[in-house]
Amino acid sequence: MKDRARRAIEECLLIAGMTEEPGRITRRFLTPPFHDVHAHLRARMEAMGMSVRVDAGGNLHGIWQPQGASGKRLIVGSHIDTVPDAGAYDGVLGVMLALELVSMAQEGAPGLAFEVIAFSEEEGVRFGVPFIGSRAVAGRFDTSLLALKDSSGKTLETAIREFGLDPGHLNDAAVDENVLGFFEIHIEQGPVLEAEKLSVAAVTGIVGQTRQSLEFAGQANHAGTTPMHLRRDALAGAAEWITAVESQTRQSEGLVATVGKIVATPNVGNVIAGTARMTLDVRHPHDAMRLGAVTELEETANKIAERRGLALQFTRLMDQPAVPMDERLTAYLEESIEASGFPLKRMPSGAGHDAMVMAGRMPAALLFLRSPGGISHNPAESVREEDVEAALLAGRRFLERLTAEVG
Amino acid sequence: MKDRARRAIEECLLIAGMTEEPGRITRRFLTPPFHDVHAHLRARMEAMGMSVRVDAGGNLHGIWQPQGASGKRLIVGSHIDTVPDAGAYDGVLGVMLALELVSMAQEGAPGLAFEVIAFSEEEGVRFGVPFIGSRAVAGRFDTSLLALKDSSGKTLETAIREFGLDPGHLNDAAVDENVLGFFEIHIEQGPVLEAEKLSVAAVTGIVGQTRQSLEFAGQANHAGTTPMHLRRDALAGAAEWITAVESQTRQSEGLVATVGKIVATPNVGNVIAGTARMTLDVRHPHDAMRLGAVTELEETANKIAERRGLALQFTRLMDQPAVPMDERLTAYLEESIEASGFPLKRMPSGAGHDAMVMAGRMPAALLFLRSPGGISHNPAESVREEDVEAALLAGRRFLERLTAEVG
Repeated sequence: MKDRARRAIEECLLIAGMTEEPGRITRRFLTPPFHDVHAHLRARMEAMGMSVRVDAGGNLHGIWQPQGASGKRLIVGSHIDTVPDAGAYDGVLGVMLALELVSMAQEGAPGLAFEVIAFSEEEGVRFGVPFIGSRAVAGRFDTSLLALKDSSGKTLETAIREFGLDPGHLNDAAVDENVLGFFEIHIEQGPVLEAEKLSVAAVTGIVGQTRQSLEFAGQANHAGTTPMHLRRDALAGAAEWITAVESQTRQSEGLVATVGKIVATPNVGNVIAGTARMTLDVRHPHDAMRLGAVTELEETANKIAERRGLALQFTRLMDQPAVPMDERLTAYLEESIEASGFPLKRMPSGAGHDAMVMAGRMPAALLFLRSPGGISHNPAESVREEDVEAALLAGRRFLERLTAEVG
Repeated sequence: MKDRARRAIEECLLIAGMTEEPGRITRRFLTPPFHDVHAHLRARMEAMGMSVRVDAGGNLHGIWQPQGASGKRLIVGSHIDTVPDAGAYDGVLGVMLALELVSMAQEGAPGLAFEVIAFSEEEGVRFGVPFIGSRAVAGRFDTSLLALKDSSGKTLETAIREFGLDPGHLNDAAVDENVLGFFEIHIEQGPVLEAEKLSVAAVTGIVGQTRQSLEFAGQANHAGTTPMHLRRDALAGAAEWITAVESQTRQSEGLVATVGKIVATPNVGNVIAGTARMTLDVRHPHDAMRLGAVTELEETANKIAERRGLALQFTRLMDQPAVPMDERLTAYLEESIEASGFPLKRMPSGAGHDAMVMAGRMPAALLFLRSPGGISHNPAESVREEDVEAALLAGRRFLERLTAEVG
């Protein structure tokens, strides 16, 4: 298993060289290095006896349907696009581990049929909309997306054509009925497993997310001539609220709330700020908890604004419900983690993954493995070989458990 | 006196039309509208029997030395440059009221000799350095300033030449020994007199000022995948500190402290801020109080940084001591305010004025009049006629008091 873990890591480093920018890993949806990744994966899959196709959404599918296997197949995979200046493992490792799982399955008695998918677009970098690959596979691709433009003004439709695909065939990217479910292995991209000294975790669901912006407006004034009691300082109001966001959020298990962006005006050292605009990002596995927290934080902002004589305006930018992973598959995954000798850890995912979109179409399960330093979307992103091995051990058990059920 | 107040206001509105930008009041140091202002003032002064010259620093001087007047003269004046998109009264009103005071003095028995100065540069807009005019008059002009460049790359030396003046004669701008002191009338540019329903105040001194920048550095991280207890959020630390700056400052009478500028990185809604850089501006009439407050605020920042695992860096940008106005002249000014029937109000100035620079060379006094709404450096800047009248009444008494002493 150590050899398989090593090979998966080496393959990720090889794929990392297929980039738009020499010296940095940047591989946006359907850019030239995608051809290299597809060629490499196709060669590996065909050598494994899989039949390979690329759908009109740029997703590469490798199917292994052995004689005597189950009629329905399990889809396993993750994405091959990256953010700019990315690490080597976000997404790609999930594809490589899918191939290792198929390879292990091929060594045993015929059990499950598999479809490995290298999703084409998850990060939302090139066209500003994420999950384009898995949307197509899950049959959730809205053709209005074809008009989206990248930063050079090229539409998604043109990008698909220029890659040699036919956007008219996008409907054919959707999976048929003959599927058992979806299984994804992904790095955590957060610090939880490291903090708890754990290799892997079963993901219970993708948290719901609210994003909004808000602005306090007071009175810009001279920092020297305006006494403290005659100020309507928008930045001081913002600071009080940011502090409250943090302390109120800490009181709720599993809740995260972030003010990541702030813009004050006129933003000059000797002028009291007239306005302060911020973003608020709130996430929780339970929608009711999240919406309750957002309401509470809004009430706090209202109280601060009223007491300080500030105007306050909210703009709701996004309200995305939580997406639970499939209970049955996740229970199998938990059994598999424990049966492989690892402590059972269940956790929500604070970020979206292809499994979130696939869960809208079929039962889905997601396995996390430790991100050293919690670092991701960064060239310093890494994985530990022992954690990759742990993911393979738990993944193999999971497939065995599913095979037992299907058989 | 009402007529004099009205005339002073009308003159300010007339001067407001002498601008670099049609429709907005913008009159930077030695720009073409300066010629118009000088021509207008020269004509008025000469009509009043004053002898007029422009020094090499662009300051316009009008001297009235009547037969039988005191040998030493009182300098009265303010500045004629403006910030971009300014109001009509900041500086200019002080020049116009100086002329009204001379005009009133001319109606009585010969008493004081006067020098009215229209200072050329106070705001620091064109060359980034303030008080260039009064520095020259006070004999504090450092010739290294001649190399300063404006936004178009023109040096101060060239600007002086192009205006038709000789930078080689800058030393001659300095006043001789034959002066009693300096008296300035200026709008408050703050909300204190309005809040206390007062027309005028005697200014006790210009507050000292510390400016510094500081930066909290934590760890930029994913807003969804990083639980609250594993964050090192630089913006949350900054917010806690801004809140503390405000509450600690409110506990000290006369202290003002402002965080007016904040820049977070990466400043993105779904990423925990890795760094937050801020400015701190602290002012107080007593240097020891100001420096003590700065030390306390730094200690608070250190505690916050330590508790949160953030790095913290301070950069001291400026430490300018307080400048008291002359005690004797200010006592005369206070007597004059009360004798004119107005409640006595003493207050520090939170902003710099020409009187601050002149105080380094001679006894100086400064009279504030109410700024409606506390608004200045803004086209909405205004004055009330009754307050202008009050300033003239108190100013006349002040001159009478000085004349009595000299005579």
